[in-house]
Amino acid sequence: MAPAPAAPAARESDAMRRAIALSARGLGATSPNPVVGCVVLDAAGRPVGEGWHRRAGGPHAEIHALAEAGDEARGGTAIVTLEPCDHTGRTGPCTRALVDAGIARVVYAVPDPHPAARGGAETLAAAGIDVEGGLLHAEAAEVNTAWLTSVRLGRPHVTWKYAAGLDGRVAAADGTSRWITSPESRADVHRLRAEADAVLVGSGTARADDPHLAVRGVPGAPQPMRVVADTGADAVHPGARILDNAAPTLIAVAEDTPVRKTARLPEHAEVVRLPRAQAGGRGLHLPALLAALHERGVRALLLEGGPTLAGSFAAAGLVDRVTGYLAPALLGEGPQVLAGAGFTTLAHALRLSLTDVTRIGPDLRITAVPLPATEES
Amino acid sequence: MAPAPAAPAARESDAMRRAIALSARGLGATSPNPVVGCVVLDAAGRPVGEGWHRRAGGPHAEIHALAEAGDEARGGTAIVTLEPCDHTGRTGPCTRALVDAGIARVVYAVPDPHPAARGGAETLAAAGIDVEGGLLHAEAAEVNTAWLTSVRLGRPHVTWKYAAGLDGRVAAADGTSRWITSPESRADVHRLRAEADAVLVGSGTARADDPHLAVRGVPGAPQPMRVVADTGADAVHPGARILDNAAPTLIAVAEDTPVRKTARLPEHAEVVRLPRAQAGGRGLHLPALLAALHERGVRALLLEGGPTLAGSFAAAGLVDRVTGYLAPALLGEGPQVLAGAGFTTLAHALRLSLTDVTRIGPDLRITAVPLPATEES
Ligand SMILES: NC(=O)c1ccc[n+]([C@@H]2O[C@H](COP(=O)([O-])OP(=O)(O)OC[C@H]3O[C@@H](n4cnc5c(N)ncnc54)[C@H](OP(=O)(O)O)[C@@H]3O)[C@@H](O)[C@H]2O)c1
Ligand SMILES: NC(=O)c1ccc[n+]([C@@H]2O[C@H](COP(=O)([O-])OP(=O)(O)OC[C@H]3O[C@@H](n4cnc5c(N)ncnc54)[C@H](OP(=O)(O)O)[C@@H]3O)[C@@H](O)[C@H]2O)c1
Repeated sequence: MAPAPAAPAARESDAMRRAIALSARGLGATSPNPVVGCVVLDAAGRPVGEGWHRRAGGPHAEIHALAEAGDEARGGTAIVTLEPCDHTGRTGPCTRALVDAGIARVVYAVPDPHPAARGGAETLAAAGIDVEGGLLHAEAAEVNTAWLTSVRLGRPHVTWKYAAGLDGRVAAADGTSRWITSPESRADVHRLRAEADAVLVGSGTARADDPHLAVRGVPGAPQPMRVVADTGADAVHPGARILDNAAPTLIAVAEDTPVRKTARLPEHAEVVRLPRAQAGGRGLHLPALLAALHERGVRALLLEGGPTLAGSFAAAGLVDRVTGYLAPALLGEGPQVLAGAGFTTLAHALRLSLTDVTRIGPDLRITAVPLPATEES
Repeated sequence: MAPAPAAPAARESDAMRRAIALSARGLGATSPNPVVGCVVLDAAGRPVGEGWHRRAGGPHAEIHALAEAGDEARGGTAIVTLEPCDHTGRTGPCTRALVDAGIARVVYAVPDPHPAARGGAETLAAAGIDVEGGLLHAEAAEVNTAWLTSVRLGRPHVTWKYAAGLDGRVAAADGTSRWITSPESRADVHRLRAEADAVLVGSGTARADDPHLAVRGVPGAPQPMRVVADTGADAVHPGARILDNAAPTLIAVAEDTPVRKTARLPEHAEVVRLPRAQAGGRGLHLPALLAALHERGVRALLLEGGPTLAGSFAAAGLVDRVTGYLAPALLGEGPQVLAGAGFTTLAHALRLSLTDVTRIGPDLRITAVPLPATEES
């Protein structure tokens, strides 16, 4: 005997789960747009089309899914992770496409917070479509965290990533910091980079490690922009690995840095001149740095250290997520994960909440987000 | 229909698992003896008696289990976590009791490594009993790690416990270190203490935190000996919380410390005079400190810091297990988990292997043991 058909509600949840998984495939490739996934069910509730937003400028998820569904979309339901857009950008509005395809019902997870795209639900309802929002909201919002944060705060979402021993040291006393963590963790970092729009390090790290910062070993992954906060244009020398052609490169320097110091950098590396940190601060003004990245389409920023730059971000309340790779080792000496954040008592510590703990090879990956109270203070 | 009887092998494994769980109930109370659990199966393979070694000087696990089984032990099987002893100590040999009870088969997990107790298996076999060793060896040895290590190395097993933020800071810049971790983690530490024979801190911690170090909130728990490494007898002042009557107290000082400095301590606190660390080292000679504890019956030592004392233990290769409570917080400043261990390059880092990762309330508890290669080096 064939199993009884799933109740419509369960089918719609299953389809939304699938749409969320599809949406995640776009991470790292869609900024400044959100990631979106869509599943189209026919009138009988069977999945007949799916799609996701693959890259900025390309068709939206709904368009891909409707195309795959063809005539079977008529009288059916579109399950979308984000409220369908109502504006004519580089592509036509999705609301129009859904109406034209004869969709009878639209279920979305997260309302579009973006002023220019808002109103999709009303337009659909006005066209006689049955519209429901909020299905699996938390799960869908989680995948879109970077984009939602950037819309809310008008700056990129910042994930600070570090690798350390159990004693919180990020390098040994002699500065050796490579290979603290395992090959498995390093591969995982490349996946993180692939999901980011830009990767940032401070001049200290550029100087000590000459990092490459491009994505390796993730087939088909888009390359993030590589960024160095190099106030005096002293750290990134011609010949630095970050200056190759593997990915775009941006060197952020202070606006008063002599032009002759940046002139020696190769032409394909962009130089951006920014104000210095305000009185008492060190290096560049971080809000200006984030604004420069936002302007360049960066919504998800991966801050890869080092401790001094990370300390400034933490002190300024500009860390939205922490991803730590903990190697089961005691280094005993050497620089700390975080320096100069300026919290002097426990009461001022940045309190977080663990959102994920995963073993990666011999290491542990910990993900945490600031507690709301701390975010406000 | 009644389920088919389990195959004898499966029954014996089930009984051994139960015996291992019983053995763990003795942790913290049996030193200088091991923890041992025992289940007696009757001739038909049904459990008819169980017991565990409850405290040093009390009856062994086998005696408890045989007493509960009574006549039903005849022709049955004794499942024991450790090879039954063959010597007449404070209690008679268990081998004799097993023979007298008419036990036909003995299955044990771990052979007794202790010279004085060895030979139990041969004695039983010579008496015509069917003897098998090694069942669930790893699981049983794990519970007895402290005792097995102390027999092998002739010193107490050392678990180093710390509580830190994700950035490896154990206190804020102003020294505030209480309440880094949650009430749940602090309760878990009391369980750790209850399983230890002694709890040790350095003079720096005694001075900064005036810790009490006794077990609270674990009903019926034995109290560990509280120990301070206070080289010059400067840190523990009359009136210190550690000097109350909640548990025994041992103050370890240098042998050349003037008697007038220790004379002011209350009489119920024992003072032990030890050699100073060898040239280049700081404080007391750790092997001498461990020997003094071993002499006093300590097999499981819980080292509760601080960073300086822990650094000396790590540098000397005297850490057998690391238990870290990680609070999801960034402290930004303040002392590190580990100080002055003297590893200067990554190649010298102490490499560990994670054995357990458990969420405790909002925190994370990580347990790790040194990798064998490191242990040897
Ligand atoms: N294990 C890991 O996860 C990891 C990751 C990265 C680095 N590391 C290690 O960390 C060490 C380097 O760390 P670091 O702390 O010296 O260097 P860093 O944090 O990479 O760079 C700090 C420098 O960035 C510049 N900067 C520009 N704007 C800034 C701002 N707003 N706030 C703070 N700094 C700003 C400053 O120098 P100018 O103003 O002169 O430009 C500052 O000295 C190396 O040993 C490296 O191997 C480890
Ligand atoms: N979060 C945690 O897990 C935790 C745990 C404990 C402490 N803490 C914090 O850590 C700080 C205190 O740490 P600390 O590093 O200053 O003190 P510590 O490690 O508790 O004590 C160090 C002192 O112990 C004495 N000592 C005796 N023999 C020694 C040896 N062989 N090696 C090293 N030291 C020996 C030395 O002083 P003398 O020779 O003069 O006696 C040394 O200065 C406080 O802020 C405390 O709150 C945090």
